[in-house]
Amino acid sequence: MPDNRPHCVLIGIGPGTGAACARRFSAEGYRVSIISRSEARLDEFAAEIPHTIPYPADIAETARYREILERVLSEQGRPKVVLYNATQATFGTYTEVPVEKLERNFRVNTAGLLVAAQVFGPAMETAGEGAIVVTGNTAATRGKPNYVGWASTKAGQRIMAESLARELGPKGIHVAYVIIDAVIDMPFARRRWTDRPEDFFAKPDDLAAEIYHVAHQPRSAQSFLVELRPFGEAW
Amino acid sequence: MPDNRPHCVLIGIGPGTGAACARRFSAEGYRVSIISRSEARLDEFAAEIPHTIPYPADIAETARYREILERVLSEQGRPKVVLYNATQATFGTYTEVPVEKLERNFRVNTAGLLVAAQVFGPAMETAGEGAIVVTGNTAATRGKPNYVGWASTKAGQRIMAESLARELGPKGIHVAYVIIDAVIDMPFARRRWTDRPEDFFAKPDDLAAEIYHVAHQPRSAQSFLVELRPFGEAW
Amino acid sequence: MPDNRPHCVLIGIGPGTGAACARRFSAEGYRVSIISRSEARLDEFAAEIPHTIPYPADIAETARYREILERVLSEQGRPKVVLYNATQATFGTYTEVPVEKLERNFRVNTAGLLVAAQVFGPAMETAGEGAIVVTGNTAATRGKPNYVGWASTKAGQRIMAESLARELGPKGIHVAYVIIDAVIDMPFARRRWTDRPEDFFAKPDDLAAEIYHVAHQPRSAQSFLVELRPFGEAW
Amino acid sequence: MPDNRPHCVLIGIGPGTGAACARRFSAEGYRVSIISRSEARLDEFAAEIPHTIPYPADIAETARYREILERVLSEQGRPKVVLYNATQATFGTYTEVPVEKLERNFRVNTAGLLVAAQVFGPAMETAGEGAIVVTGNTAATRGKPNYVGWASTKAGQRIMAESLARELGPKGIHVAYVIIDAVIDMPFARRRWTDRPEDFFAKPDDLAAEIYHVAHQPRSAQSFLVELRPFGEAW
Repeated sequence: MPDNRPHCVLIGIGPGTGAACARRFSAEGYRVSIISRSEARLDEFAAEIPHTIPYPADIAETARYREILERVLSEQGRPKVVLYNATQATFGTYTEVPVEKLERNFRVNTAGLLVAAQVFGPAMETAGEGAIVVTGNTAATRGKPNYVGWASTKAGQRIMAESLARELGPKGIHVAYVIIDAVIDMPFARRRWTDRPEDFFAKPDDLAAEIYHVAHQPRSAQSFLVELRPFGEAW
Repeated sequence: MPDNRPHCVLIGIGPGTGAACARRFSAEGYRVSIISRSEARLDEFAAEIPHTIPYPADIAETARYREILERVLSEQGRPKVVLYNATQATFGTYTEVPVEKLERNFRVNTAGLLVAAQVFGPAMETAGEGAIVVTGNTAATRGKPNYVGWASTKAGQRIMAESLARELGPKGIHVAYVIIDAVIDMPFARRRWTDRPEDFFAKPDDLAAEIYHVAHQPRSAQSFLVELRPFGEAW
Repeated sequence: MPDNRPHCVLIGIGPGTGAACARRFSAEGYRVSIISRSEARLDEFAAEIPHTIPYPADIAETARYREILERVLSEQGRPKVVLYNATQATFGTYTEVPVEKLERNFRVNTAGLLVAAQVFGPAMETAGEGAIVVTGNTAATRGKPNYVGWASTKAGQRIMAESLARELGPKGIHVAYVIIDAVIDMPFARRRWTDRPEDFFAKPDDLAAEIYHVAHQPRSAQSFLVELRPFGEAW
Repeated sequence: MPDNRPHCVLIGIGPGTGAACARRFSAEGYRVSIISRSEARLDEFAAEIPHTIPYPADIAETARYREILERVLSEQGRPKVVLYNATQATFGTYTEVPVEKLERNFRVNTAGLLVAAQVFGPAMETAGEGAIVVTGNTAATRGKPNYVGWASTKAGQRIMAESLARELGPKGIHVAYVIIDAVIDMPFARRRWTDRPEDFFAKPDDLAAEIYHVAHQPRSAQSFLVELRPFGEAW
């Protein structure tokens, strides 16, 4: 049975921004339902981060994914904050990207956000409060070569969030879209960009702090589109 | 066997912009392969508009749709112009729109454009010329309430077109995205907006003329994003 | 006394886009009042291009500039088309650009457009037709380093044009803003970018053709923002 | 002689956002140099808000304004934060707005920001830290009817800030532009919109809290464009 901590649902958790968000919300007093495909990884996070409850689910299996979210709602109660951090990408030229991959990316990046809103939104509406924060990147705003299989689904995600923001805002639910314009500081990024200074990378803890801030902006001064980049990033 | 007329492929034809484009390209000397779900409607257009060849296909049935496009290519030859005018919409609040409808809209609006580029792009690349013109609307740029099931798929379409434009532009293929910010002059629109002046409506023939123009801009001065609205439209 | 040709006012004419527009509008049957600071240059253009009438004026001298425009109106009559092609730029870092230069750039790029609208707009309103086309570049949409003394004034110009478009559109006057995202094919550009292929440069005649097109779009399908770039341009 | 408090320069202070920022930065430990045209008003704020130092200056008198800023720098030392909250507006149709008013608005809204950057930027560069936060509104992103005398100067301000952000960011100075998309809760606004609910208005204290947050974002996760609106605002 849930404790008295406010409930945060975190959909999509890897070792970067997702884990940092789980740690931050936990440290700030939240109970965090964490959702990801990999049960093993979820168990590790649940063991490491206090007040997290693992719910394995694959967003690409829509019906099953919806059931899991409904179970989260019934077992953990109405969330105060939903973080949608899932992302699925395919790179390649327009002849290389299978259309099935494109559709799968849309399902994970965009359709899965609608399902989350459908499951948790009505309870949040009843409470008249809460936040849904979606994390994206610059692919959400423009289409570059080799992004043909991905950018369209992130742009779809951003506009889906904007539709939700305009629909749910007047009902007291703050929907925000965070564009992380950065290479996030992760071991693989360090291996790939070995010549970059410390400052080149966005720290997951800093991103999580900003995401936490956005999720708690005062009702009279809220942001929809939020861009975050390291001070040295060229843009 | 194809005649000497340049070939235009028109994907998505109804009685408005699509039919006007078929007429215009036909009048300007093109042979036009017209693609739509309804065989009966295609036959009517083919009977009415000279130099049009009907190819019934449902974009939502991806594999079959791709086969039809490949047949168009093999029977009618490399297109000089591809017009992607297909659109599929679902209106409703975020709790009303079935996620399956959202995914179908994405398939028709966005994934079907990738398939068309995959089928016709390589032949156009070899020729080093041609244009792909996609028609959209303001839903492609913003998410409003009740557009949750549609705007995200049109935004995906726009960014898909932008990815294609940046990939194919340097290869001599002009990709453009036309945002029609208007109520198009059609019998049902006249019935719905009975109190509006003549000027309120965008004429399909005018839209087709602009689309024809965009498809033939000189190589040194081309537009990607094109917005078209009646002079009296509020925006 | 004016002949029967429709009247075009061209504010800002150099050897590139401006001269090409004068030639194009002249060839299409217009009489063109050409306005620029340099009397000598204007006389050369007037000698070379049929149906052009020189009116020397420095936009930075606001009162005198307004008088000249009023003289154009009284001597040549109501313009059907006003092309605002004036531009004044200062490059440099934020510590290098004198604020006086910034203000002068604003005067030429933005305030001078308002003056032109004030002088010619009312007559065009009475006629219920006409077009005002403003030419800009990508500085109008973003601020990059070293553009601190310029981009803000071009962005001001674009938004000024947008205000005018929304105010004058419903009155039958089409206002458009053309973003030329290109290096224009001019002798100095050829000297600076000696290694670029022919295709790298935008041809002034092509730009003028597109500008002419925009100025004559049908009332039911008009563009405000128009972007033009060579097919090989990276963007 | 300055105390040990970090120094904030606040350019443009009225009873709304400006005063709330002064209070907030003061409460958080800053010493705040407050700059405005009205000496009487500055003295009232200085008497009411601890750790504020009044510097009367009219931004429209460029040379004198620059001298005052230089005096602020020499007397109070290098600022850690510069808040540019000055705004000057003129409403009216395109025929009503005197071009002199437009130019004055540009001077206050845009040129004055460049002057502030020129005076304080180099010292901040040497320190390798600090923030410049500019407050604007939606006029900075679009031109509507009756905004012809104002929107162009706010758009210029936004793009000026963007140029500065890209120039100063890599030097460790965070430049941000805050778009306040709201009616701010002030006595005159309450009198004008008497029928609106409490939630309709943005609270100056909330805005100031968000501005304070932006000025202190971690170096690895900073925003340039920040939008703030009440949850019930239509956008």
